[in-house]
Amino acid sequence: MFDPVTKLKEFIRHPSVSADSRFHEGMVGARDFIAGLLSSIGFAVEVVKTPRHPIVLARRGGPDHWPHVIIYGHYDVQPADPLNLWQSAPFEPEIRGERIYGRGAADNKGPMMVHVAAVARLLEKRPDLPLRITFLIEGEEEMGSPSFPGFLAEYRDTLKKADFVFLSDTGIPNPDQVVITCGLRGLVLFDVEITGAKSDLHSGLHGGVVRNPIQALAELCASLHTPDGRVNVPGFYDDVLDVEPWEREQLAKLGGDAEAYRQFLGVPAFHTPPGYTPFECVRFLPTLEFNGIGGGYQGEGTKTVIPSKAMAKISCRLVPNQNPDRIRELLYRTVRERVPSDVTLRIIDQHEGQAYIVVPPDRSNTPRDQSPVLAKAFRATDAAVAEVFGRPPLYLREGGSVPIIAQLKQIVGLDSLMMGLFLPEDNLHAPNESFHLGVMERGIRASEKVLAALADGGR
Amino acid sequence: MFDPVTKLKEFIRHPSVSADSRFHEGMVGARDFIAGLLSSIGFAVEVVKTPRHPIVLARRGGPDHWPHVIIYGHYDVQPADPLNLWQSAPFEPEIRGERIYGRGAADNKGPMMVHVAAVARLLEKRPDLPLRITFLIEGEEEMGSPSFPGFLAEYRDTLKKADFVFLSDTGIPNPDQVVITCGLRGLVLFDVEITGAKSDLHSGLHGGVVRNPIQALAELCASLHTPDGRVNVPGFYDDVLDVEPWEREQLAKLGGDAEAYRQFLGVPAFHTPPGYTPFECVRFLPTLEFNGIGGGYQGEGTKTVIPSKAMAKISCRLVPNQNPDRIRELLYRTVRERVPSDVTLRIIDQHEGQAYIVVPPDRSNTPRDQSPVLAKAFRATDAAVAEVFGRPPLYLREGGSVPIIAQLKQIVGLDSLMMGLFLPEDNLHAPNESFHLGVMERGIRASEKVLAALADGGR
Repeated sequence: MFDPVTKLKEFIRHPSVSADSRFHEGMVGARDFIAGLLSSIGFAVEVVKTPRHPIVLARRGGPDHWPHVIIYGHYDVQPADPLNLWQSAPFEPEIRGERIYGRGAADNKGPMMVHVAAVARLLEKRPDLPLRITFLIEGEEEMGSPSFPGFLAEYRDTLKKADFVFLSDTGIPNPDQVVITCGLRGLVLFDVEITGAKSDLHSGLHGGVVRNPIQALAELCASLHTPDGRVNVPGFYDDVLDVEPWEREQLAKLGGDAEAYRQFLGVPAFHTPPGYTPFECVRFLPTLEFNGIGGGYQGEGTKTVIPSKAMAKISCRLVPNQNPDRIRELLYRTVRERVPSDVTLRIIDQHEGQAYIVVPPDRSNTPRDQSPVLAKAFRATDAAVAEVFGRPPLYLREGGSVPIIAQLKQIVGLDSLMMGLFLPEDNLHAPNESFHLGVMERGIRASEKVLAALADGGR
Repeated sequence: MFDPVTKLKEFIRHPSVSADSRFHEGMVGARDFIAGLLSSIGFAVEVVKTPRHPIVLARRGGPDHWPHVIIYGHYDVQPADPLNLWQSAPFEPEIRGERIYGRGAADNKGPMMVHVAAVARLLEKRPDLPLRITFLIEGEEEMGSPSFPGFLAEYRDTLKKADFVFLSDTGIPNPDQVVITCGLRGLVLFDVEITGAKSDLHSGLHGGVVRNPIQALAELCASLHTPDGRVNVPGFYDDVLDVEPWEREQLAKLGGDAEAYRQFLGVPAFHTPPGYTPFECVRFLPTLEFNGIGGGYQGEGTKTVIPSKAMAKISCRLVPNQNPDRIRELLYRTVRERVPSDVTLRIIDQHEGQAYIVVPPDRSNTPRDQSPVLAKAFRATDAAVAEVFGRPPLYLREGGSVPIIAQLKQIVGLDSLMMGLFLPEDNLHAPNESFHLGVMERGIRASEKVLAALADGGR
């Protein structure tokens, strides 16, 4: 029988840090390991070259009337630094208590192994299972998946014939409460650079005759929010998808102690638009944030200079229905209108990503065009999670952005069923990362039930 | 007879860069040179130790009824980098055309030599000249004169018995037009640091619930000016000394082409409060400038972070009558009132300096308490400059700050007669610094006449 813990240990031992070229051997090792593992349970493995790290595509085919699920995961991990804060070596997995420790244990090798084990167990019992499965395991997730859109474009025609994507790369609040992530925020990023005089000026000899570019930038930045915390850009909220009552209900079930959250953030008070709790703001509202600002002298002491330039890095989180291109246009128009003509403005494009939403069936009154297999998968997951974890999952939008999920929808037309499995205390991207073995085992049982129900449900 | 050009060459050959400890020998050399030179023309020289570079104090005493002038200068120079832009070596003085080239030629070795030569020539002709003269030559001017206030406090009792300070360390627009600087702006500097969350936050997971410290800082900074370019701090202008009509007339005589100035600065347009020309703004109005701003990510590309902190460096140029302590109090009160309570504010004191004004006699209708010897010196300078340079000097306030001038007034009670001698094309603080030999010779003749008139005028 497939032993997921032993396999996960072996997987963790390959130090697959995608961002650091010194870990090339670890990347190759992890890739060969997962390719071999999938091959050993009967999958036809293709290693797809990309400009950086190849993608492992492993297929179990079948007739067209079998449902077809794509299972997504990534074999790369975050760097392990700072090493001295680890209790056990990051690439020597160790079980302590009910957890397995090691870099990648929770992000994403453990949760990925959940689905591999579920498939292995199910196929052991039912070798003729009427279900097509494609594992899509990438190696650049921790670098921002730069090769993913190109891969999707190249494989669009074969991938689009699948029914949906199943993955576990999101979080849950505690070991008993699974969360299905139904929405992610999008992004629009750009820099604003303002130039005053052609070079830095002596603030005594010339102070008082030119508009300081820091002042112009501050005036611009200050204009971009209303005092109550909303984004002050005309048209910005036009297309925002309204929150439905069921979403607020789901979030309320999650609970959450606002005062504890405030203390965790370490702020004197929240600053939220009226009508939303802090937890709702993060999930349901778009934002405009300043990620950085710079200009002039920033060292110790003083330098009495009027700087020539100042710049700010701005990003907006978008919610479903907001189109990044339209939002970018509104932002740029507003910025251009508000910067005075006695300084020079330059806007520098940065990247963008669409928001994503998938509405679980039987929830919303707004009908959406969805794969019937996906609807079955949602219902099956609801039932399986309720049975295995003792309570049904919650359906929540998240504040973060996972570009590959929006890309799968945009480029290939596929929705994703995101079954969260990692816990806040799993220390993702931090020292002493671990994965909860109880969650792992229950995840396998739930995944197995979902896949079995899908196979039995047909297309 | 005293040959000022030969002496100046010798002086320049000592590379006296005060800010760079590798030039220790040059500092000692320049100091010994000027001490020896003053001794050779009959002065009693004292070398006063300070924490960094000693001050040369050279005295020619006499009875109390003789007027007593202090002549200020500095023997240190700016670094000469970048060396490759010099046509001749910076510490090997060379005469080309009507100029002598070398680091320190204009700032301040040449103009200082003007007064040494004037004294030497005068004493050669009139060994019994009834005039007390003290040379006060410091070695830290290019480092901000850190030891000067301590020196003044220590020597206050002897220095305060003098009548005024005579110096040439300011500029003139062309070789025929001397400017007497009658006012300098003061300074108040401080940093503002705003903290939001206790650490940087992921802008997806937490974006929308806290006030971004960059936003709070931008809102604060944007509030500190009115749209028409005035400083928006209640009480800021209360004590500002009104410009008198004679000051505007003097400035008008200086001329100045606003369009050429705009092109020199390289700004699309000026940004000045109503009622003042750009040239007047710099001299007559106080300012609030942002010298630097920083927070969050400032590198290439993007980082979707809500920074924990943001800071700005703020400086005000003050005009005569504005008290730096009171202005600091108004600024801090305003800042504290305007920063919202959902972020944490920290204000970091930086230094300050008083503005300075000395009103030449026969100009203003506002009577001022001034040394009668100073009034005689002003009248003598006016006449001497008119005779030697062919036109009378202009009396102008400047936009910059010279802390030692305000300190001489504050700590010792002495006013300064600042007879400008360097030209815009002298390249102070830049490669190919030079001093105009024609200005030098005329300066010597004018200084000699002033000193002679002072001696003859009594106290």
